[in-house]
Amino acid sequence: MNHDDYLRRALQLAAEGMRRGEGGPFGALIVRDGEIIGEAWNQVVANNDPSAHAEVMAIRRAAAHIEHFHLHGARLYTSCEPCPMCLGAAYWAHIDRIYYAANGEDAAAVGFSDDFILQQLRLPAGERAIPAENRLRDEGRKVFERYAELSAKTDY
Amino acid sequence: MNHDDYLRRALQLAAEGMRRGEGGPFGALIVRDGEIIGEAWNQVVANNDPSAHAEVMAIRRAAAHIEHFHLHGARLYTSCEPCPMCLGAAYWAHIDRIYYAANGEDAAAVGFSDDFILQQLRLPAGERAIPAENRLRDEGRKVFERYAELSAKTDY
Repeated sequence: MNHDDYLRRALQLAAEGMRRGEGGPFGALIVRDGEIIGEAWNQVVANNDPSAHAEVMAIRRAAAHIEHFHLHGARLYTSCEPCPMCLGAAYWAHIDRIYYAANGEDAAAVGFSDDFILQQLRLPAGERAIPAENRLRDEGRKVFERYAELSAKTDY
Repeated sequence: MNHDDYLRRALQLAAEGMRRGEGGPFGALIVRDGEIIGEAWNQVVANNDPSAHAEVMAIRRAAAHIEHFHLHGARLYTSCEPCPMCLGAAYWAHIDRIYYAANGEDAAAVGFSDDFILQQLRLPAGERAIPAENRLRDEGRKVFERYAELSAKTDY
């Protein structure tokens, strides 16, 4: 399968999730060494889970499948450009490369907030629509200091 | 319980997850109408799930608990300023307000990529460390057109 074959599979997954009414029209898969190791469609509505975007679900399934939280050498194929949440997940997973069909503007045109959220993240924290308040920073740092001193820990 | 009480609970959760070695030193909870409706610590390592940050897990649990993918009127208390993935999840969940203890710089100081990922999202897509390639945009838009025409669908 070539890049377009994998992308068309992502589009099929999107259509299938939409047909079932499980969430938005989005599908994604993770490919490594020529093998699909995780695939998903959006299940926000079916699962009552705002994080159940196709990309996050495909990443979770791929990581569960290979029993590791890093997906070095893997590619993400997705029916639409990933939103900031999904892009963040791709960074944490150490995905190598992303291929997408529709883009964030196309998603916005049918009512999805991807572009709005990206604009929000580009604002200084104090100017965002969800206010965030910093309190007890010293107590927060103490937990990190204890973590830094741990001899046995697993980086991710 | 006041804001600092909830934040100290988030810090306790962070310490507990760290003690168990389940992931990074992060804890979070969701509060609505004076009730804790979801709480979690980071379980990236224990679950082999790169998306299992404390905030994402607390949001998922809260949404499952109230059986709705939106958390209007809810507040997120977290031991550390949310990373872009978690902040994205907070936007999709329609969280009202965020309270955090340590900040992204503090997390970077003990080796976490929060600030790096935020800087990446602020770059134009073509300049990011994970290359993203747009292909088959017309086919991607066709799925969205079919979605736009659906009479029965649930917005999120």
